[in-house]
Amino acid sequence: MGCPAVLLLLLAFLTPGVAIRVPPAMKALSSLRASPPPRHTVAKKYSIHYIQQKVDHFGFTADETFKQRYLIADEHWKKNGGSILFYTGNEGDITWFCNNTGFMWDVADQLKAMLVFAEHRYYGESLPFGNKSFKDSRHLNFLTSEQALADFAVLIKHLKRTIPGAKNQPVIAVGGSYGGMLAAWFRMKYPHMVVGALAASAPIWHFGNLVPCGVFMEIVTKDFKRSGPNCSETIRSSWDAINRFARTGAGLRWLSEALGLCTALTNTEDVQRLKAWISETWINLAMVDYPYESDFLQPLPAWPIKVVCQYLKNPSVSDAQLLQNIFQALNVYYNYSGQASCLNISETTTSSLGTQGWSYQACTEMVMPFCTNGIDDMFEPHLWNLGEFSDDCFKQWGVRPRPAWIITMYGGKNISSHTNIIFSNGELDPWSGGGVTKDITDTLVAITIPEGAHHLDLRARNAFDPTTVLLARSLEVRHMKQWIRDFYASLRKKH
Amino acid sequence: MGCPAVLLLLLAFLTPGVAIRVPPAMKALSSLRASPPPRHTVAKKYSIHYIQQKVDHFGFTADETFKQRYLIADEHWKKNGGSILFYTGNEGDITWFCNNTGFMWDVADQLKAMLVFAEHRYYGESLPFGNKSFKDSRHLNFLTSEQALADFAVLIKHLKRTIPGAKNQPVIAVGGSYGGMLAAWFRMKYPHMVVGALAASAPIWHFGNLVPCGVFMEIVTKDFKRSGPNCSETIRSSWDAINRFARTGAGLRWLSEALGLCTALTNTEDVQRLKAWISETWINLAMVDYPYESDFLQPLPAWPIKVVCQYLKNPSVSDAQLLQNIFQALNVYYNYSGQASCLNISETTTSSLGTQGWSYQACTEMVMPFCTNGIDDMFEPHLWNLGEFSDDCFKQWGVRPRPAWIITMYGGKNISSHTNIIFSNGELDPWSGGGVTKDITDTLVAITIPEGAHHLDLRARNAFDPTTVLLARSLEVRHMKQWIRDFYASLRKKH
Repeated sequence: MGCPAVLLLLLAFLTPGVAIRVPPAMKALSSLRASPPPRHTVAKKYSIHYIQQKVDHFGFTADETFKQRYLIADEHWKKNGGSILFYTGNEGDITWFCNNTGFMWDVADQLKAMLVFAEHRYYGESLPFGNKSFKDSRHLNFLTSEQALADFAVLIKHLKRTIPGAKNQPVIAVGGSYGGMLAAWFRMKYPHMVVGALAASAPIWHFGNLVPCGVFMEIVTKDFKRSGPNCSETIRSSWDAINRFARTGAGLRWLSEALGLCTALTNTEDVQRLKAWISETWINLAMVDYPYESDFLQPLPAWPIKVVCQYLKNPSVSDAQLLQNIFQALNVYYNYSGQASCLNISETTTSSLGTQGWSYQACTEMVMPFCTNGIDDMFEPHLWNLGEFSDDCFKQWGVRPRPAWIITMYGGKNISSHTNIIFSNGELDPWSGGGVTKDITDTLVAITIPEGAHHLDLRARNAFDPTTVLLARSLEVRHMKQWIRDFYASLRKKH
Repeated sequence: MGCPAVLLLLLAFLTPGVAIRVPPAMKALSSLRASPPPRHTVAKKYSIHYIQQKVDHFGFTADETFKQRYLIADEHWKKNGGSILFYTGNEGDITWFCNNTGFMWDVADQLKAMLVFAEHRYYGESLPFGNKSFKDSRHLNFLTSEQALADFAVLIKHLKRTIPGAKNQPVIAVGGSYGGMLAAWFRMKYPHMVVGALAASAPIWHFGNLVPCGVFMEIVTKDFKRSGPNCSETIRSSWDAINRFARTGAGLRWLSEALGLCTALTNTEDVQRLKAWISETWINLAMVDYPYESDFLQPLPAWPIKVVCQYLKNPSVSDAQLLQNIFQALNVYYNYSGQASCLNISETTTSSLGTQGWSYQACTEMVMPFCTNGIDDMFEPHLWNLGEFSDDCFKQWGVRPRPAWIITMYGGKNISSHTNIIFSNGELDPWSGGGVTKDITDTLVAITIPEGAHHLDLRARNAFDPTTVLLARSLEVRHMKQWIRDFYASLRKKH
């Protein structure tokens, strides 16, 4: 899922009334950044395909179709006794997810698996109305999880019909974050299509009041607390320091310079955006606090929060010193490559994520309440205000959220009648607060990874992987093998 | 389901190119008919309610709502340890289904059940766009099974929230025919909403090539074969007799008079319509071949096919005699009350069924292939021709069917991962050919009723009920009680 949701949500509650669109400037910084091949990803070999999908699976008036992109890697696939791992694409370019889901590549051999990566509609190249897809709410009307799941179902049917040998093979859904929710929901709604699902870091309960709205930011805070002495306290102190500087024009100028911002702060709104951007940086760090150098949202050192916290050891220094330390800390995230000449508060993450699409989804189905109280977390206190959020959504997209719908549709906490879903969560990952972290039944199982951040288990194996993630992955594979065995056993029984 | 589907389908394959709209004349004959209170139904006591539903649950652009009607009967409901039986309304006025589903009333007491009857959108009073609902394909766009199921889910949530005592009670879906499919699909897609489903006479496999397209008409034929010597043979002979008369103007005049038609036949198309209407009459008789006097589609005697077959004992008489006998047989169905002065070939059934809506549904999602070969059945041979059917649909509604969609959506024969669904079928019912008539698992069970026609088990108990339906009902209740016990046991475990 990543940041866009949080970006919107934070901005919504930090700067009420300001509807933020992601600026085209976003790509600028990406190009500034040096782009060596990320250290632990090897270029993947896959073929690129397209399938014509109905723009509207649930109505018959519109008969338009669009090209959905999907990738196939079948190097290790065996027609005899093999399987199909089906990545339920989430809010971004599918090639990016394909390259960041090394787990599937690592297990392809032992599962004799074909890998399929399906792009989510309205992201990457899979745009239902081309460059008009985001034009207005009418064109966005078909951007829902239900339509995306229907795309997946139609695609699987197509693969089984057209690829010789695929027909009688078990398919397993795999996804992380929003894609993990989709994997779980896909198994729930289309159990005839997939024998099971690995839903990594899927916060399927971060809706309505299924979990407290503060849980997410509390976990972010805990991550900083455990990563260095006084680290979270220093961040908690920084907000007031910023506020004190922000009172005068000279203070704003000093802030802009001390934080190395590309664009100078000029008013209160800018300061709100600055604080939202800094907050989101800490959030992102919590998500990608991986035990080795990585380049998921940004190029980062191993255990990046520990590195950040080295600059944040003392909450009691002067405001100026405190904010200079914050600048050093931000630089770990934004300038690990050492090539950024300034920091752009309009951007926090890779441009491979489709921020427009996710902003719309967060404004319709994916309404995730967030709040802070400044006590259990290190942020300024903000209540969750659905009314304001809805008004912002209406201004930005011309639609209003239906916060209860996802629970009506997918069952909320009442999902025990389903089977064969693994919910994996890293305890460092703030999204784990909205995830399933306890077994529900024998076949709806939770795997927690104490030293794991956002879907660490889906990443490629690495020499620095903590034992807990190795264990998690081996458990996941064991479940998958069981599902595959069960599938073939029941197939034999039929014939 | 009933006749409208068949009407359209038969007309589609008997008179290719003729797009039939159900004429307003339909109500004429109904008013001719004497209307004593049906013998075995007692006026039911219920309260009438409305809930505002989104016209489009799956998109956020249109924000219109409409009033869905539902009925509640809570005479036997107990807040302590009770249950909720939820009738998933099908293609007609909900009060009509309410009065024809005596089974729910009969078991309310022992299940301490509240009865809820939810009207299906686009039928009865639940019209999303009032009298414009059928205006064009744009207004009809929200008439799908998925939207209907979403209505049911939203309604159940509403009931649980607003009726004190309902919140922690198990809900069981009950439906017959298309409503039986909805009950089964509702349990499959929303298992968090209902603990189980009784799907009576639900032909969930009458799609694609899951069952042979001839099975329906073969069962109709068997019903006539078993109900009197030479009965099906006589009917098989009648088509050619009609064709021979239809060759001349004098023959057409004779036919019109001999069959007591309200409107004289004048051309070949009229003759095709006549044969379609007669075919549909035999089909309807097969559906309502109940062991006692009833008034479901028409007022009828007990075992009406036996009565009909008394007139159809000899296939070898002259054409004129044969058709006069056919007229006598038709009169059993159309004029049991003795008050019809002529027969109207535009109408076969009660006006409580929403024929327009069903015709649209059959042209979009509910594509059920039918065919005859004149050998295994008593009808003229007709192949199933999807292309022609699609063209007719396009002419009539401006939409084309997606015959594979229902299977993609609801799983076709691959449904074994679901639980707690009873599929009941009467062996006399032609729809049983597309139904689940063998257990799939311990909790997906089939109950067959050898002497049962279309969802006989859902009808009120009757002194003339065959033992097999009594047995079926008691099995059904046993399963329901088990689901209710399981629900309360798991509730206790939670607290």
